[in-house]
Amino acid sequence: MEFSSKLLENAVYEISQLPGIGKRTALRLALHLLKQPEDQTSHLTGALLNLRNQIKFCSSCHNISDVALCEICSNPKRDETVVCVVEDIRDVMAIENTGQFRGLYHVLGGKISPMECVGPQDLTIASLVEKVKQGKINELIFALSSTMEGDTTNFYIFKQIEGFSVKTSTIARGIAVGDELEYADEVTLGRSILNRIPFESSMKMS
Amino acid sequence: MEFSSKLLENAVYEISQLPGIGKRTALRLALHLLKQPEDQTSHLTGALLNLRNQIKFCSSCHNISDVALCEICSNPKRDETVVCVVEDIRDVMAIENTGQFRGLYHVLGGKISPMECVGPQDLTIASLVEKVKQGKINELIFALSSTMEGDTTNFYIFKQIEGFSVKTSTIARGIAVGDELEYADEVTLGRSILNRIPFESSMKMS
Repeated sequence: MEFSSKLLENAVYEISQLPGIGKRTALRLALHLLKQPEDQTSHLTGALLNLRNQIKFCSSCHNISDVALCEICSNPKRDETVVCVVEDIRDVMAIENTGQFRGLYHVLGGKISPMECVGPQDLTIASLVEKVKQGKINELIFALSSTMEGDTTNFYIFKQIEGFSVKTSTIARGIAVGDELEYADEVTLGRSILNRIPFESSMKMS
Repeated sequence: MEFSSKLLENAVYEISQLPGIGKRTALRLALHLLKQPEDQTSHLTGALLNLRNQIKFCSSCHNISDVALCEICSNPKRDETVVCVVEDIRDVMAIENTGQFRGLYHVLGGKISPMECVGPQDLTIASLVEKVKQGKINELIFALSSTMEGDTTNFYIFKQIEGFSVKTSTIARGIAVGDELEYADEVTLGRSILNRIPFESSMKMS
């Protein structure tokens, strides 16, 4: 693309550095901002700068938080002996939305991925292992996505805490509620048969 | 969505004000910026602020330009008697890429659209009419998109310059080069038959 303006070219370049945004979309967004009042651009850039420069992470669960100890970790009604291990804040939000979990979280900040140069030392695994060593946790629930990276991360953590008295579990994989069997993939359907649960307990949930 | 951080919530809100970006994508982009070095956020916000605050428009064609008279308008090799009327800078870039046009442009900054509260006074129509009145333009080529809004805008301008000695034309509509006839829509195919051109002149172009 040939631009008649260096300012525009620069803005398009920076916007297109964001994931999933190409040059064309970046140009569309830049032209949109030009048509809007200057306030919108200053609000957007102000919010981004504030986020990036003032962001804090909870000292215990490492979730994004504006205070030193996040609302969940500092809530006395939550069960601190059950910890759910997740990748990032989106998973925390998704699980919180279900209203089914009353324990605490541990946010890893990613998954082990040699392809993307993410090793165990880039994640908050050490602090999780430390919590387990202190014996405060009864159960660790792995809730990472069931990909190669997720499984690797689960397994790495599992190896680190082997020998300590902590129960480990992973969230159930199976056919989604309301889904048709015929459209389910083989692996999921296979697992859902292997991991079948007593009919009485499935009745209790619904 | 319930956020554990006001900073994050605010950033997601501002990003999701951009067209075509929902809350989920906004959250993904915000989390991406958090994972990148602080430099990336400051470069992005700097480029956006510079663009919005320092943007200039060519005093003649109203295209985005870093100088008072844009490169195209100030190029003595271009034919200033032929002016192509377009909506925005993207159309200028597209036509420039063809290398087929040696005249100047006039950038309207949009199309007349009552639905989006865009009237003739929001566009640079007055300045175009003024140019025509001064008698410097021999031919005006309408290159707006062939939508209701585009046609309305063409017609409005056409009415304004009626009576002045200027030739008007619109870019040809027809089957795209390389396209199969059977997949063309009826209106386009119909127009391409009505506006057929002598075979000899089509030979010269290829």
